[in-house]
Amino acid sequence: MPARTAERGFPDLEYQDRLRKVQAAMAGDGIGIILLTSEHDIRYFSGFLTQFWQSPTRPWFLLVPADGKPVAVIPQIGAECMGKTWVEDIRTWPSPHPDDDGVSLLAGTIAELAGQTPAIGLMKGRETFIRMPLGDFERLRAQFPDAAWRDVTALLQGMRAVKSEAEIAKIRMACHAASRAFAEVPGLLRRGMSEIEAFRAFKIACLDEGADDVAYLVGGAAEGGYGDIISPPSARRLADGDILILDTGCVWDGYFCDFDRNFAIGGISDDARAAYETVWAATEAGLEAARPGTTCADLFQAMNRVMNGNETDNSAGGDVGRLGHGLGMQLTEFPSLTPFDRTVLKPGMVLTLEPGYAFAPGKMMVHEENIVVRESCAELLTTRAPRTMPVIG
Amino acid sequence: MPARTAERGFPDLEYQDRLRKVQAAMAGDGIGIILLTSEHDIRYFSGFLTQFWQSPTRPWFLLVPADGKPVAVIPQIGAECMGKTWVEDIRTWPSPHPDDDGVSLLAGTIAELAGQTPAIGLMKGRETFIRMPLGDFERLRAQFPDAAWRDVTALLQGMRAVKSEAEIAKIRMACHAASRAFAEVPGLLRRGMSEIEAFRAFKIACLDEGADDVAYLVGGAAEGGYGDIISPPSARRLADGDILILDTGCVWDGYFCDFDRNFAIGGISDDARAAYETVWAATEAGLEAARPGTTCADLFQAMNRVMNGNETDNSAGGDVGRLGHGLGMQLTEFPSLTPFDRTVLKPGMVLTLEPGYAFAPGKMMVHEENIVVRESCAELLTTRAPRTMPVIG
Repeated sequence: MPARTAERGFPDLEYQDRLRKVQAAMAGDGIGIILLTSEHDIRYFSGFLTQFWQSPTRPWFLLVPADGKPVAVIPQIGAECMGKTWVEDIRTWPSPHPDDDGVSLLAGTIAELAGQTPAIGLMKGRETFIRMPLGDFERLRAQFPDAAWRDVTALLQGMRAVKSEAEIAKIRMACHAASRAFAEVPGLLRRGMSEIEAFRAFKIACLDEGADDVAYLVGGAAEGGYGDIISPPSARRLADGDILILDTGCVWDGYFCDFDRNFAIGGISDDARAAYETVWAATEAGLEAARPGTTCADLFQAMNRVMNGNETDNSAGGDVGRLGHGLGMQLTEFPSLTPFDRTVLKPGMVLTLEPGYAFAPGKMMVHEENIVVRESCAELLTTRAPRTMPVIG
Repeated sequence: MPARTAERGFPDLEYQDRLRKVQAAMAGDGIGIILLTSEHDIRYFSGFLTQFWQSPTRPWFLLVPADGKPVAVIPQIGAECMGKTWVEDIRTWPSPHPDDDGVSLLAGTIAELAGQTPAIGLMKGRETFIRMPLGDFERLRAQFPDAAWRDVTALLQGMRAVKSEAEIAKIRMACHAASRAFAEVPGLLRRGMSEIEAFRAFKIACLDEGADDVAYLVGGAAEGGYGDIISPPSARRLADGDILILDTGCVWDGYFCDFDRNFAIGGISDDARAAYETVWAATEAGLEAARPGTTCADLFQAMNRVMNGNETDNSAGGDVGRLGHGLGMQLTEFPSLTPFDRTVLKPGMVLTLEPGYAFAPGKMMVHEENIVVRESCAELLTTRAPRTMPVIG
């Protein structure tokens, strides 16, 4: 039985280990410095955790040099918060600034750490973006006309995909809070409630059960089955014959769960019941298949076969385009369970298994569990969904 | 007395009005098409509202042509949600895609709407970023070697800064929910509670009082005064002599409030009491000064004078770097109340007044209210903070 609590934060050893790994790869690839601009990449190497990223006003930078600890180049407002992390070299500027919002300080620090013709690693690939104004990024590039700008997406995504036990413990905390909240749903929701009221009640239950935040809750209800799984809740009231999906990303100490549960209001039609059983069985096949050495494409096919019967029809997942993904500091992370993702599963990878199935025109059934890949099996982090869809109301 | 409820969504007229304004400016500036990639800019012209943006996996695009309605170029998973908006031309691709995640579809749509040598407006300035992989952005640019890429930050930020009555009503809903939750704090929190427990109780109160989400809650407590206002809550327990600040961004139908409240635990020192009275008086001066024709710099000075006594010392705000900012779809928006922001206030601008004051080494007092600029005065959207700091415990 997993512990009911986990430690907040990480020991410095965790960051030392991440730094050692990335610097070994940098040395092998001839990369002199890595420039990070996004919340999750900066947090991964520094431990800098704050919701202040909600404000787009100020850019934040972390530099990972070839040797030595990361160097933070950040607005003054963050100095005290960054000072609580293991980062020691914290350089600040007053932000907002009338004409130089950190660019000169950043360029000077890069030159100091890696010279005037550095090989600068940055994130250019899938699922990334540069979180600073494009104009400022162009100004920065102009200061290093002879630099080599190298994409380190594969390196960093590969590292982040394999979680430490301390990271897994945080994800488990988020999963447990949401699992307990889902268990309360039959007592919380009833016919006649609006989706807005139902979502609010569920969010409060997640917080009551220990989630720090309910950063993500989408879904909704529709008669006989839903077709849209990303909209916010509407004023529409739950009615007999509805299928309701709640898909949540609760957060604990900066780590997400991401899973959904389905509920029938009043009763359930035969085709929806059958669709639920199909996606439940597909998840079971995924749980069986998810082990080291398997590829993401294999795992896709293991679930796809249950839904579509063969491997030439890759339509499972429908508009979602995949049957699961990585999970951690972000609601969705590398890798993706698609027919084309050849990433090999390793122990410590945390994944969602998310089979989706279009069982009638405009009607989907999506199911989701969160797992960690272990040496010889998949370990569930979520409390497994019931085999038949709960009926409430 | 403002209404206690507002409408969700907007009538199409709201989007028609925004489109008319931006296209008039585009015609004047010779811009053939605007490419939008970020959640808020896309939502502003389309009404596309979803928490699915939490997932970094897929890029989303909205094109604003010189004539006609916006065109969405989005992953298939969003087609049904986008179909509920006023946008009619919705082009989708299956995402994630092995080698072309929307770039060809986007490039083809730009060429169809604006030709092969278009003047393409995009967001390059302060408080913006391009939310797509840098590598894909470079691929897109390479497809239009003779295009002119024009920064439309000032145009769009200027438009978004002036809110419609329907937008103001949503911000007011968020402000009211948080105001009511703050009023409950003396009954909710007590000495001995951890910051984590206190934050959780306050988040639940905000939801109970009608907030859709509590997307932002930072602050904390420290003996005699706090120095860090952006950290998440710690396990530290509230104790007599602490000053606690809670700074929240609650959301209602996609619009934020952003304000804080201070509480003394058990009792209050003379210097903290005096600091609170100073920032309260600075806010009062800001409320008096905030009217059409005043600049943001003027408004900064009106508050700064109360705290620092003269205009040559612009240190008010300390590490925050400003004394308030715009507010709307984002927790913080253009403009900024700094000594260098010459933006002229207009009716309909929604702002925070956020005087901050360092009253002892490592100790700040920050206060905040949310207002809308009216023809002849500032209208408070928040319930005004009490003149003296509440003592709880």
